[in-house]
Amino acid sequence: MSRILDIEDIDDIAAGAAVLGCGGGGDPYIGALMTCQSLRGGAPVRLVASADVPDDALVIVIAGIGAPPVLVEKIPNGSESELALRFLEKHLGRRADYLMAAEIGGMNSLHPLQVAAKVGLPVIDADGMGRAFPKLEMTSFHIHGIPVTPMVLANERGDLMLMQTTSDQQAEHFVKHLAVAMGGIMSSAGFALRGAEVKCAAVSGTVSICQDIGRALRESRRLRQDPFDALLAAMHATEYYCHAHLIFEGKVADVERRVTGRHNLGQARIEGPDGVMEISIQNEYLIASRNGRTVAIVPDLVAVLDEDTAQAITAESLRYGQRVRVLAASVPPIMRSEAALRVWGPQAFGIDEPFVPIEQLMAAGD
Amino acid sequence: MSRILDIEDIDDIAAGAAVLGCGGGGDPYIGALMTCQSLRGGAPVRLVASADVPDDALVIVIAGIGAPPVLVEKIPNGSESELALRFLEKHLGRRADYLMAAEIGGMNSLHPLQVAAKVGLPVIDADGMGRAFPKLEMTSFHIHGIPVTPMVLANERGDLMLMQTTSDQQAEHFVKHLAVAMGGIMSSAGFALRGAEVKCAAVSGTVSICQDIGRALRESRRLRQDPFDALLAAMHATEYYCHAHLIFEGKVADVERRVTGRHNLGQARIEGPDGVMEISIQNEYLIASRNGRTVAIVPDLVAVLDEDTAQAITAESLRYGQRVRVLAASVPPIMRSEAALRVWGPQAFGIDEPFVPIEQLMAAGD
Repeated sequence: MSRILDIEDIDDIAAGAAVLGCGGGGDPYIGALMTCQSLRGGAPVRLVASADVPDDALVIVIAGIGAPPVLVEKIPNGSESELALRFLEKHLGRRADYLMAAEIGGMNSLHPLQVAAKVGLPVIDADGMGRAFPKLEMTSFHIHGIPVTPMVLANERGDLMLMQTTSDQQAEHFVKHLAVAMGGIMSSAGFALRGAEVKCAAVSGTVSICQDIGRALRESRRLRQDPFDALLAAMHATEYYCHAHLIFEGKVADVERRVTGRHNLGQARIEGPDGVMEISIQNEYLIASRNGRTVAIVPDLVAVLDEDTAQAITAESLRYGQRVRVLAASVPPIMRSEAALRVWGPQAFGIDEPFVPIEQLMAAGD
Repeated sequence: MSRILDIEDIDDIAAGAAVLGCGGGGDPYIGALMTCQSLRGGAPVRLVASADVPDDALVIVIAGIGAPPVLVEKIPNGSESELALRFLEKHLGRRADYLMAAEIGGMNSLHPLQVAAKVGLPVIDADGMGRAFPKLEMTSFHIHGIPVTPMVLANERGDLMLMQTTSDQQAEHFVKHLAVAMGGIMSSAGFALRGAEVKCAAVSGTVSICQDIGRALRESRRLRQDPFDALLAAMHATEYYCHAHLIFEGKVADVERRVTGRHNLGQARIEGPDGVMEISIQNEYLIASRNGRTVAIVPDLVAVLDEDTAQAITAESLRYGQRVRVLAASVPPIMRSEAALRVWGPQAFGIDEPFVPIEQLMAAGD
């Protein structure tokens, strides 16, 4: 199964990815602008189901890496990822057959589409987490033993860095330093999976799910319907995100934020009729507590949505005075396995709480 | 002209390189130990005059990069540079024909010999400066437009980083960050010159000169002669370092030192019968002033020698109470050209003084 993506599809994917991306993965507006520009001047982009990818195909994963707040001020020139891809292909001695996203997040869901339009490659309808995460080893590929390196990093000047590390954690260690050296944000090409590996290790169908969610939001606006109803209905219709709930509404009272080159670290406080919600941030929204009690916790999704439009607000755009609703949702089962939780469960972020699925937290709650 | 190097040659090269290396280039004792170990277990190493290298030969430059004080505590495992070399060869799609040193300095003169014994390649009797310098762009190769990248960096774990930068200055920028990420010291393989480029851009004969100086020092000790007379005679006999003078003697009164991941920065103060000498340090000894007047300035050599043995003391080993003599000497003409001084003249180190050759400073002096 495959289909050609047009400009309207891009905006829908961006809107849906912003919700599933938990406030991370880079600004969706910039991602959509860049991708639409590439599509207008470039090749048509074909989205392909992972089941239809030949086992021996070479699949390269394209992603922006760094602190999302930097992206808003320092926009890529649009050629970084293509440079990174070509350099990796040269190293591998083989041309890529497909591109794929590392994560579902504002910009990073679109990044492979943007490159695909430039180089004329199809993109696989899948990614490595079905949400966004702030570290290189936090992918379903890692859980399946597929290394992130060789990976090429590129900056807007055209400097290239090819990493071949002894572990994915070491790759993350270097990326932390290189993100600073490359000015806070960089583009990457890595993973170099075979088609067979994509089938067993990737989270499939996520680009289409983004698009379905984005389309539902757009349609609801056109029909003057409640966008939150439309959003929840779209999520409930999925296998992965079916346990989706609005867990709070209120006004952003405070956002503490510290940008480290690699990460956007912070804490948001939202006040509303039901009390106070605190959300901790590491590029993504990680954990939400309502009046001191945890109501949603990583790897389950936490998204902050504009009260009027249900549009997702990235962690770097969240600011005092915004009226918002907070959404929590389940993630694909592969993301909740024991092996997975060792890598991206609450402990991996220094949170001393066990992971409890949102459906259990909801059942135990008020 | 070529010859096989034996173990005794290595010690002589180390001793001579420590003098010409201006206190930089890494600890000569560790370099000699590592190289002798490789030679005992490995292939014989042939030293080849640059004139005898075929024009189309591929020459790879091997060097340790980072803060020399780290090397003293964190000794390489000995395989880093070979890994870096092999990775660079894979990238270039071609095996190296010769190895060469980037600089003349305690360890870095020996580094290519250490690798050569492991991989069975000949080493060219030349380097890229005829002394040691603390930044990647400070080579005669750079002055001739030969880029430092692609360059591979390796740490003791086996992590590899291949840089392809838009300028040598950008490469230095990344190395500064990567040195921190790799724990202060790393090994490198880079430059990838052709034989024809070596002939026009390298400083030739410098490994043999190191050996001549080292042999003169060793012989003087054996014959109970004054090692300083022997050292000066050996330097006066060279084309490059013929203006060699002892400019001070005294006791080290103070050494301020600050190690960044990439550099050993500091200031030494020596007190003696003729007053006070101040020497500023950035990995290497850069400028020496006697009673407030500059008496030797980069790129000319400043070396600090043990008063009894005339053995060179590296900048990281200099400490309070040592009784020393300070030597200054001219450098190869290629290192004093206008283009060269723009890259490694005093201004490049933030020193607001013009370069004046040591022979002029001596003539103007007391």
